[in-house]
Amino acid sequence: LVLCSFLQMGWGDLGAFGEPSKETPNLDQMASEGMLFMDFYTANPLCSPSRAALLTGRLPVRNGFYTTNGHARNAYTPQDIVGGIPDSELLLPELLKKAGYVNKIIGKWHLGHRPQFHPLKHGFDEWFGSPNCHFGPYDNKAVPNIPVYRDWEMIGRYYEDFKIDLKTGEANLTQIYLQEALDFISRQQASQQPFFLYWAIDATHAPVYASKHFLGSSQRGLYGDAVREIDDSVGKILKHLQKLGISENTFVFFTSDNGAALISAPKQGGSNGRFLCGKQTTFEGGMREPAIAWWPGHIPAGGVSHQLGNVMDLFTTSLSLAGLQPPSDRQIDGIDLLPAILQGKLIDRPIFYYRGNEMMAVRVGLYKAHYWTWSNSWEEYSKGIDFCPGQNVSGVTTHTQEEHTTLPLLFHLGRDPGEKYPLSFASEEYQGVMERISAVVQQHKETMVPGVPQFNVCDKAVMNWSPPGCEKLGKCLQPPESNPKKCFWPH
Amino acid sequence: LVLCSFLQMGWGDLGAFGEPSKETPNLDQMASEGMLFMDFYTANPLCSPSRAALLTGRLPVRNGFYTTNGHARNAYTPQDIVGGIPDSELLLPELLKKAGYVNKIIGKWHLGHRPQFHPLKHGFDEWFGSPNCHFGPYDNKAVPNIPVYRDWEMIGRYYEDFKIDLKTGEANLTQIYLQEALDFISRQQASQQPFFLYWAIDATHAPVYASKHFLGSSQRGLYGDAVREIDDSVGKILKHLQKLGISENTFVFFTSDNGAALISAPKQGGSNGRFLCGKQTTFEGGMREPAIAWWPGHIPAGGVSHQLGNVMDLFTTSLSLAGLQPPSDRQIDGIDLLPAILQGKLIDRPIFYYRGNEMMAVRVGLYKAHYWTWSNSWEEYSKGIDFCPGQNVSGVTTHTQEEHTTLPLLFHLGRDPGEKYPLSFASEEYQGVMERISAVVQQHKETMVPGVPQFNVCDKAVMNWSPPGCEKLGKCLQPPESNPKKCFWPH
Repeated sequence: LVLCSFLQMGWGDLGAFGEPSKETPNLDQMASEGMLFMDFYTANPLCSPSRAALLTGRLPVRNGFYTTNGHARNAYTPQDIVGGIPDSELLLPELLKKAGYVNKIIGKWHLGHRPQFHPLKHGFDEWFGSPNCHFGPYDNKAVPNIPVYRDWEMIGRYYEDFKIDLKTGEANLTQIYLQEALDFISRQQASQQPFFLYWAIDATHAPVYASKHFLGSSQRGLYGDAVREIDDSVGKILKHLQKLGISENTFVFFTSDNGAALISAPKQGGSNGRFLCGKQTTFEGGMREPAIAWWPGHIPAGGVSHQLGNVMDLFTTSLSLAGLQPPSDRQIDGIDLLPAILQGKLIDRPIFYYRGNEMMAVRVGLYKAHYWTWSNSWEEYSKGIDFCPGQNVSGVTTHTQEEHTTLPLLFHLGRDPGEKYPLSFASEEYQGVMERISAVVQQHKETMVPGVPQFNVCDKAVMNWSPPGCEKLGKCLQPPESNPKKCFWPH
Repeated sequence: LVLCSFLQMGWGDLGAFGEPSKETPNLDQMASEGMLFMDFYTANPLCSPSRAALLTGRLPVRNGFYTTNGHARNAYTPQDIVGGIPDSELLLPELLKKAGYVNKIIGKWHLGHRPQFHPLKHGFDEWFGSPNCHFGPYDNKAVPNIPVYRDWEMIGRYYEDFKIDLKTGEANLTQIYLQEALDFISRQQASQQPFFLYWAIDATHAPVYASKHFLGSSQRGLYGDAVREIDDSVGKILKHLQKLGISENTFVFFTSDNGAALISAPKQGGSNGRFLCGKQTTFEGGMREPAIAWWPGHIPAGGVSHQLGNVMDLFTTSLSLAGLQPPSDRQIDGIDLLPAILQGKLIDRPIFYYRGNEMMAVRVGLYKAHYWTWSNSWEEYSKGIDFCPGQNVSGVTTHTQEEHTTLPLLFHLGRDPGEKYPLSFASEEYQGVMERISAVVQQHKETMVPGVPQFNVCDKAVMNWSPPGCEKLGKCLQPPESNPKKCFWPH
């Protein structure tokens, strides 16, 4: 089992989804050999909650990956976050262990960096990568550089030991992550043990990087170079599985954790195709994701599925592949996609679009109803932070939080995938569809029991000052005094 | 030789180019068996000039398909147009005749409907279709319904004899056009004669229609139904060529004459993917076109070309396929694409974006410089006519004609295919690139000899009142008195 999940690569970044430079031959080939999902979603328009949802099969509002510090706010796991994945959550690798799987995460963990949140305490057997995003600042000792772990201990830090040249964008991290993946797969094949590889790399997240060989290789600038390197790496992983003769025993799924970040465009920003807005928003550009399932000999080549899918389904589907049942003592939002993948079935299920603990929108069939609309505040927008550059849709991409709970904005995503033309409230179509959607929403809300919010408290003292292993490297830093505060989440 | 050119099907309407419903399996397969052009353009963002350019290999400003009634105005061939294709122009079928080709046009001619402009006077041997667009109004005798010709004479009229149900969108015209194509191909194969089929259908042009079998078949509404029927028809034409054993002797090219008309969205409007704006504009959405070359046994399957191409190239390429040279007594803008198609070569050539006789923009390599920007007037825009719905880019999609000739707006279409982020005028990149582009533009302007403008004069008396053959059908109408006027071209 290999799940490839990339930091904010957008739907429109793949040649198979119409990126005009068409620079992803390996992913396009993966799609032509496997199944392309056209209607696949993440559980949240931001990294940490999306990844927590993937590994727990549950909406962030259930597993605690949200904040109540403000209404409808996105929140994640920066260095000063106090919270992380609760022990009460059951993660995919914990469950797979029962079926004898060896589990490895390569890349960004994103589920909390304090000791109790360590991935090896939550079911993974191996880890190579870092707990947070590496925002820098570069070599600034006032904020520790993000550590890189091998299993229990850190082995260095971003910038200091794992170079990223912020000027040229050069870094060989993706090559290291690729080699880790190939080695792990080889070892598991040799020992004949079932494995779960979670390859969660971050080259397309700011600061975007690529290794020397790929710098300048794209028509799209540095971001495109990073995409090309990822594409090349996925191709090498698939070829490695084939070479080892285990491709027919290995289910591989490729997707992303949120839409492309358009604020970084055009130099570091990806593409969400013709979908509206990007990361941070509950428009299609924020949550519709590229998705490909690959399993030669099982999945018919060249398949296209319109099954509404979600990263949370990878939890349930992976368990199903391992012959396991999802836990029955809690609400699981993911569904088993195997009937859709192997038999072409279409399972009727809604998609919920959350921001914090607010259900902003819901998709049922081809219809999407917005109960709340918000891009970001006028205050942020006036500073040049634009989640929807060149895509203002009046009354839709609003800069105040607009409530539509009594009369939701309704879109038909078949005729209008770009969410530009709300249906007339007076139309018969609107009335009929909203009746159906209201029932879905009512049931969802009635049974919703939110988890304890993990992203309310921040404290500079919890940053990665002295991760385990720092002593051996002489890389321990002195933390400041503890001063817990409400985290500030502006959007 | 088969050229399929569709009325305003957009770049983003193909599954292969990322249409989220992915409903064009035949065109996608055509692409996977042939070559996909990612950077292919029309010569004008409007139907008539684009088609005149395709058949003459020359920019509309050279062949006369433009107006000087207003600055930078789009113009075409409505029923009251006095002009049409000048006798002095040499059309592709006229030239192909010299190599023994039998030429047929099926569908919209668009190059003028008065007797001197008849396609059979300009090289075609057969015609089935109509001279203009069928805007209706339905069964309104104050304006004649558009005639349908078989060769020299009309055999009926749209709405009256060739039904289009404006309520349901039902019409079986595409099926008739398909049958005409299959029959023609069979006859030519039987007589062993080389042929040129120009299949220029119009189902995706307002009023959009589809035959009963396809109504409701798409997720995208009626427009999607029309696309599905076209997709199905192209598949049938290709299969027919294969069945007759002549696919390896038949070069097939599929493209469109202008970008999707976003003003008709979402119910009748197509998609230009992530490109800016649509039909009528010189942004990418108005002129970048879907394009596929198919020639089994010659074109390597699954090819992708970044050759900058143009519909005018189909003129020169077709001549090349027939072993003919383009005329040497005039400026030909089309180039021979065979080196790009068969040997993967990349030929450096610019793309010019015209509106009327104004060069609005030019593309050189990955850079596009706008010398003039305009979407439409404030007056039109305030009436709800929007060529760029939900895509306003400040200073780019302007509602006044903005001159940038001294300091063009420059975009890098690799990093920014959506034309949202003009390069800084002060940047080194801007300076270096503009030097190169200025030289190209200067040379272009120095050698430009505009043709006599054909779209300046309109006269209700020239409408399709009494086309040849009307007597036999009892369908002659009485024309009003001649009253030639300056045509009004609002955008």
